[in-house]
Amino acid sequence: MNLPTKMMAAVLYGMNDVRIVDREVPTPGQEEALIKIEACGVCGGDIKIITKGMPNQPPFGEFIIGHEYAGTIVALGDGIDEFKIGDRVAVEVHKGCGRCKNCLVGKYTVCLNYGNFDKGHRANGFTTNGGFAEFAVNHVNTICKIPDSISFDEATLITTAGTSLYGIDMAGGYVPGDTIAVLGPGAIGLMSVQCCKAIGAGKVILTGTRDDRLELGKKLGADWAINVKNGSPVEKIREITGGIGADLVLITSGSEDSLQQALKMTRRGGNITILAHFDEPVMADIGLAVKNGINLYTVRGEGRMSVHRALALMSQKKIDGNALITHTFALKEMNKALTTFAERHEGAIKVVVHP
Amino acid sequence: MNLPTKMMAAVLYGMNDVRIVDREVPTPGQEEALIKIEACGVCGGDIKIITKGMPNQPPFGEFIIGHEYAGTIVALGDGIDEFKIGDRVAVEVHKGCGRCKNCLVGKYTVCLNYGNFDKGHRANGFTTNGGFAEFAVNHVNTICKIPDSISFDEATLITTAGTSLYGIDMAGGYVPGDTIAVLGPGAIGLMSVQCCKAIGAGKVILTGTRDDRLELGKKLGADWAINVKNGSPVEKIREITGGIGADLVLITSGSEDSLQQALKMTRRGGNITILAHFDEPVMADIGLAVKNGINLYTVRGEGRMSVHRALALMSQKKIDGNALITHTFALKEMNKALTTFAERHEGAIKVVVHP
Amino acid sequence: MNLPTKMMAAVLYGMNDVRIVDREVPTPGQEEALIKIEACGVCGGDIKIITKGMPNQPPFGEFIIGHEYAGTIVALGDGIDEFKIGDRVAVEVHKGCGRCKNCLVGKYTVCLNYGNFDKGHRANGFTTNGGFAEFAVNHVNTICKIPDSISFDEATLITTAGTSLYGIDMAGGYVPGDTIAVLGPGAIGLMSVQCCKAIGAGKVILTGTRDDRLELGKKLGADWAINVKNGSPVEKIREITGGIGADLVLITSGSEDSLQQALKMTRRGGNITILAHFDEPVMADIGLAVKNGINLYTVRGEGRMSVHRALALMSQKKIDGNALITHTFALKEMNKALTTFAERHEGAIKVVVHP
Amino acid sequence: MNLPTKMMAAVLYGMNDVRIVDREVPTPGQEEALIKIEACGVCGGDIKIITKGMPNQPPFGEFIIGHEYAGTIVALGDGIDEFKIGDRVAVEVHKGCGRCKNCLVGKYTVCLNYGNFDKGHRANGFTTNGGFAEFAVNHVNTICKIPDSISFDEATLITTAGTSLYGIDMAGGYVPGDTIAVLGPGAIGLMSVQCCKAIGAGKVILTGTRDDRLELGKKLGADWAINVKNGSPVEKIREITGGIGADLVLITSGSEDSLQQALKMTRRGGNITILAHFDEPVMADIGLAVKNGINLYTVRGEGRMSVHRALALMSQKKIDGNALITHTFALKEMNKALTTFAERHEGAIKVVVHP
Repeated sequence: MNLPTKMMAAVLYGMNDVRIVDREVPTPGQEEALIKIEACGVCGGDIKIITKGMPNQPPFGEFIIGHEYAGTIVALGDGIDEFKIGDRVAVEVHKGCGRCKNCLVGKYTVCLNYGNFDKGHRANGFTTNGGFAEFAVNHVNTICKIPDSISFDEATLITTAGTSLYGIDMAGGYVPGDTIAVLGPGAIGLMSVQCCKAIGAGKVILTGTRDDRLELGKKLGADWAINVKNGSPVEKIREITGGIGADLVLITSGSEDSLQQALKMTRRGGNITILAHFDEPVMADIGLAVKNGINLYTVRGEGRMSVHRALALMSQKKIDGNALITHTFALKEMNKALTTFAERHEGAIKVVVHP
Repeated sequence: MNLPTKMMAAVLYGMNDVRIVDREVPTPGQEEALIKIEACGVCGGDIKIITKGMPNQPPFGEFIIGHEYAGTIVALGDGIDEFKIGDRVAVEVHKGCGRCKNCLVGKYTVCLNYGNFDKGHRANGFTTNGGFAEFAVNHVNTICKIPDSISFDEATLITTAGTSLYGIDMAGGYVPGDTIAVLGPGAIGLMSVQCCKAIGAGKVILTGTRDDRLELGKKLGADWAINVKNGSPVEKIREITGGIGADLVLITSGSEDSLQQALKMTRRGGNITILAHFDEPVMADIGLAVKNGINLYTVRGEGRMSVHRALALMSQKKIDGNALITHTFALKEMNKALTTFAERHEGAIKVVVHP
Repeated sequence: MNLPTKMMAAVLYGMNDVRIVDREVPTPGQEEALIKIEACGVCGGDIKIITKGMPNQPPFGEFIIGHEYAGTIVALGDGIDEFKIGDRVAVEVHKGCGRCKNCLVGKYTVCLNYGNFDKGHRANGFTTNGGFAEFAVNHVNTICKIPDSISFDEATLITTAGTSLYGIDMAGGYVPGDTIAVLGPGAIGLMSVQCCKAIGAGKVILTGTRDDRLELGKKLGADWAINVKNGSPVEKIREITGGIGADLVLITSGSEDSLQQALKMTRRGGNITILAHFDEPVMADIGLAVKNGINLYTVRGEGRMSVHRALALMSQKKIDGNALITHTFALKEMNKALTTFAERHEGAIKVVVHP
Repeated sequence: MNLPTKMMAAVLYGMNDVRIVDREVPTPGQEEALIKIEACGVCGGDIKIITKGMPNQPPFGEFIIGHEYAGTIVALGDGIDEFKIGDRVAVEVHKGCGRCKNCLVGKYTVCLNYGNFDKGHRANGFTTNGGFAEFAVNHVNTICKIPDSISFDEATLITTAGTSLYGIDMAGGYVPGDTIAVLGPGAIGLMSVQCCKAIGAGKVILTGTRDDRLELGKKLGADWAINVKNGSPVEKIREITGGIGADLVLITSGSEDSLQQALKMTRRGGNITILAHFDEPVMADIGLAVKNGINLYTVRGEGRMSVHRALALMSQKKIDGNALITHTFALKEMNKALTTFAERHEGAIKVVVHP
């Protein structure tokens, strides 16, 4: 393939200042591949980067955002035989340093050298350049081959599903027949509902404030969808579970009261996994966890190769990424894509950009 | 309900001597329920009891066999509010002593007081009377309520499915996307195939010697079914997995070479669970396990409340017990039922008896 | 042995009203033993019961408090062969129902039938009568035989040590070489320091506000003891760990800021176990846990037979219960014992009562 | 430091042909350090390499053997800030590829690219050059800083202790109060005894055939040492444990009957870890494991950073490496060192070579 030298990319020039500009096409190094990007999803993390910034991000004027992408391998650096040119692939975010105490035991999403490029860490779209561009370079560790049966658009959702799965994995992972409450019907919440059902959960209960999202949650497998505006979900979940509470609660919404609600709706001896980002301290009755022997797990993105598991479920049509994609835009319309997502125009859930 | 005082029961009078005789209907004690049995499945364990005997079994002339049964609660002893008369229920085998080092940490299938009735242990159909009878008494710990959508016949399969699930649970339990080989297409093997798929496994490969069973395995979800008469399954599984081997191997057949095969087809760092009973010592290259970091888990029946998980999957129609039921007989025909099962007449897989 | 029919006991007659009165000596039932109590420790839980009350406690005028006790078996109910008359024993608090979803998988401290005596649950000194009396009845599940090398006084500390160990167990249990911070130099904190060292922890850091307690902590094995009045322990722990933070933090103090401190001093990918009771909601930056992949475990008392492990460490002289006993009183002086403990007279840590 | 260009090294020229020859001092590459070796232990693995060979080993005439070594860092490649010149260090064997399914989840000792240097795997002394030389190059992942309180000789034992610890870790890791049987009083067995005691095990029982080794085992902490020549250790262990059996059995001897013995002496619900290498298939009654719910774990060397844990225990003087060192030789006497070890001259246990 004859590769161009220039490409279009969405570069962050400052707070709330994303520009579509020309950039050099990057060259893959040792153990890296160059991906021609076909689709890149907008995530809440992108909005946070644009509006507030994140630690360790590349400088303004250089930083190409975007971390949920899929495309075709068009060039390979040295030392890769896992992939070949022409492979259709999707990506995961985190490549750990491979040498710290966490990476060596498999916890690469919480690498102790997070943001330290020289020591081998990368989080494309966070601490290195990402996927709102025509091309991106990825380390072999962060690439998954996708089957022809999955579109590039849908494949961008494997990071979302990988996060859901990692959250379940953290809390034990084995849920057949369990009652699981999912707090928050955002993309991760809706995908969590699907993942729970795909791996045998019993009753799945989704809570939120927007009826359209809750309806979609039911279509995607939720057995109950509770609008918290109509009353406490705690009572309802107690009722559904014969007074006992949920075996597992997945918090996918960083709203002020979600932790407190979770503590009250989890059964004695049950578990909570927090997959949402809380920017502010929250007030919660942590004594309820102690009294009831509830453990709290946390997940920062998709670890333990969970994107590969997500891909397998997607290939088997057990989870549906397309159901969450409400809008697509060309890369030129990047700012419109961001606004549509951030302001939830026309019920936007997942917005995908096509470079 | 006006309960009879006499009932028909299949009683073991000696090796290979099962007689249908009249017995007193038992009375439920503290924390026990009396179940009017509607269906009881024949299991390999029954054949072993009849032909070889097992430790701690009740005396000849008293022992009512049968441990996979379902029916309706018709009387309750003191201290039960979990169930009421009229409830449709199925059972699990093991009720631990509740006081030994194993029971107290949740390992009730390997109770240290196994067979000690006075200390509270029971394994209905093994160490206490079982279900090939019109009525049986069960401790509250071994009863599961079944929904109307599940027939009594199908419900007898929850112990089979519970065993499969416990075997997967033992080896970590979290298998989305994993490649799992199931050795042996008996009832547990065929149910294991279904359970693996129901909880998100990737590729499931069934091996055996009988084409009809293997075909059924494919209908029930196996992605590959390998007849070992046509060549080594090890090679084929290596081929399917790109040379790496299976993530998990479930041994459900106690054939002489199944352990050795499993050791050779499991990937480096993978797991094996043995759910089959090996009566004789086997020769195996255990050094392969050490060299490849493979762990071996074992399961004696359905523990950790796995029958409840099995029931949940069955209620969701994610596993199908009916598919394994090939024959039904009246209790009077008990010996014909046993022969049909033991000699695999007419392709018998699961044979269910109706008292 | 000729048992008396009457005994002296400390009975709760109302809030802050403990009276030493005569009571019938109880009779052990099925699976129960009667213990002649030689020593019973005062615990923070007792103070809470006396000053605030707890759910499911026996009625005023009947409730004999006390849950950390040791003595000699003087009578046996039916069905016990684990013990014989004359055995020196100590106790654990929780006897689960043995039939709920939690008990059946080994989580008997969070029994779903907590407080339901009819269904078999007991927590002596909380929901049934306890040990500030000349005699008490215990279920076989809650009795541990103690060797002659351990005094009755010291043996009362196995519940304290069992709680520490269960807290470590919950967070993985395997800590050789790990850096562990223990927040709070109360009895559980000081025992946690000892337990951590006894099972191979690397650096153990104790924090608190009282210099005498911190000094004792150092004598008992803490490598550092930090008085939080002199500055943030977070900085100091970061310094000790080369900026990384503690692998595990054990919160044994329910002070308002202990959770927030723990979140800040735990390393990325590390764990926190909460062993303290928080009566009020706390404000904490839970986002730190998510960002850093920190899991939070909770412990309500000593589960998973941890008192047996505690006893083993005590027998090997790897943990020292005597070091925490500052005062002993006769049962007649019960109220003085309670005051001494609650108001920390003369540096009281563990106060033991001799019936 | 002015580094020489030539060094003395023990090179394998063919089966049973080790020669002390001159070699170029290697140059550390990216993420590598050059270590001036002060001590290198002889291990059973070395003997196996010399007498039988192992897969993926470097060619005859090039292969410098030795994998248990310690020394001082004398040069650093690019990209290392974890160490500085002059640091006293010891090593672990395995550096995984960092990119396969096993490495990414922390199982680097069973790297799927084992022996593939180009993909980043290294096992110094097995698949790349090792430590019977004046200098060796190590990847940053395989280097541990040692405190001044530990001699270079003793530090060579951290791989041995790391293997013991990893074996315990695999089987759950949390052993306070447990009864552990260690089969085989070789270096790993004797170190396992020490590690078990250092992390709180209750009774530790060592078995073997040589009285001097067994005596040493008792000095190092074993509560019992059983010479299997005097009768079955199974009976004795049943007796010690009141008929129940050992909670954990560590097999450190690859003798023909060790697995069968372990199966018979493990308690119902207990665990076995195999740390020995079995070259030949063994006959064993695996049905005992199934019947008794025993799981078997395997360990190939020291993983999960267990050498760091070993080092911590050694620094605290909780395990003693020196106790196992019976002989030291100069590098020139390499063949004498090998013979002394292999033929157990003068009761040789650990033989250390000083380059």
